[in-house]
Amino acid sequence: MQTDCIFCKIIQGDIPSTKVYEDDDVLAFLDISQTTPGHTLLIPKKHIENIFEYDDELASRVLTKIPMIARAIKQSDPAIKGLNILNNNGEEAYQSVFHSHIHFVPRFTRDNDDFSMHFTDNSAKYSATDLNEIAAKIRTNLEV
Amino acid sequence: MQTDCIFCKIIQGDIPSTKVYEDDDVLAFLDISQTTPGHTLLIPKKHIENIFEYDDELASRVLTKIPMIARAIKQSDPAIKGLNILNNNGEEAYQSVFHSHIHFVPRFTRDNDDFSMHFTDNSAKYSATDLNEIAAKIRTNLEV
Repeated sequence: MQTDCIFCKIIQGDIPSTKVYEDDDVLAFLDISQTTPGHTLLIPKKHIENIFEYDDELASRVLTKIPMIARAIKQSDPAIKGLNILNNNGEEAYQSVFHSHIHFVPRFTRDNDDFSMHFTDNSAKYSATDLNEIAAKIRTNLEV
Repeated sequence: MQTDCIFCKIIQGDIPSTKVYEDDDVLAFLDISQTTPGHTLLIPKKHIENIFEYDDELASRVLTKIPMIARAIKQSDPAIKGLNILNNNGEEAYQSVFHSHIHFVPRFTRDNDDFSMHFTDNSAKYSATDLNEIAAKIRTNLEV
């Protein structure tokens, strides 16, 4: 627990939240800003800043619960057609609360709601050689 | 394996890919469109369409590997400042290949690259009663 962390305060009950699920390891509650209705956050009770700080044990206790939360949200409203699940790490990735959290944003329509994403199509930008060089640098840090 | 699935064909080796990690349960490879350099996809080898189809066993074999892949990408280039991890479910959520996959999009800057997200701030839109009603519908599908 970090005393200056808003999510740690929510876990402690010092700040109210609208809970959807809780167990020994995780808390899921509605985002105070409902980007779309049902917008939920899943957080580990252990204070970690981002995805890079998960060890295997914590990953097993937290990340395996993503499908259960996803299904519960989907089943909560027949108008929900899709679901974006997002985990933002670092200010450059739009992280604003530095207690690692996973967003679940239900989608009712593709374009006419309060959430959108833009991906540039860069399919023609990189050669096979470029891709191999990028992948080699990532593989350096993985044991296969 | 589904015969008409591009990701199943990549797993089988019938379509080439630039691999960054592989084990019995998962494959991670570069997205053919590098939204940013290092943009990686993590997929279960088992063909499932979306997050809703994960059972506990598959979640344990696949989703627990997210932090390892995230760290490897982050460590691959000191210019990477942040990382967006995304899982899109349904056409309305921008899913275009219907073999469940997780995007890892490295962020070099917040605004000046080829990926952006827009969240409307709806903090003032819903009352406490509204939030309780939404959460109650989600909780119906969860055992606490």
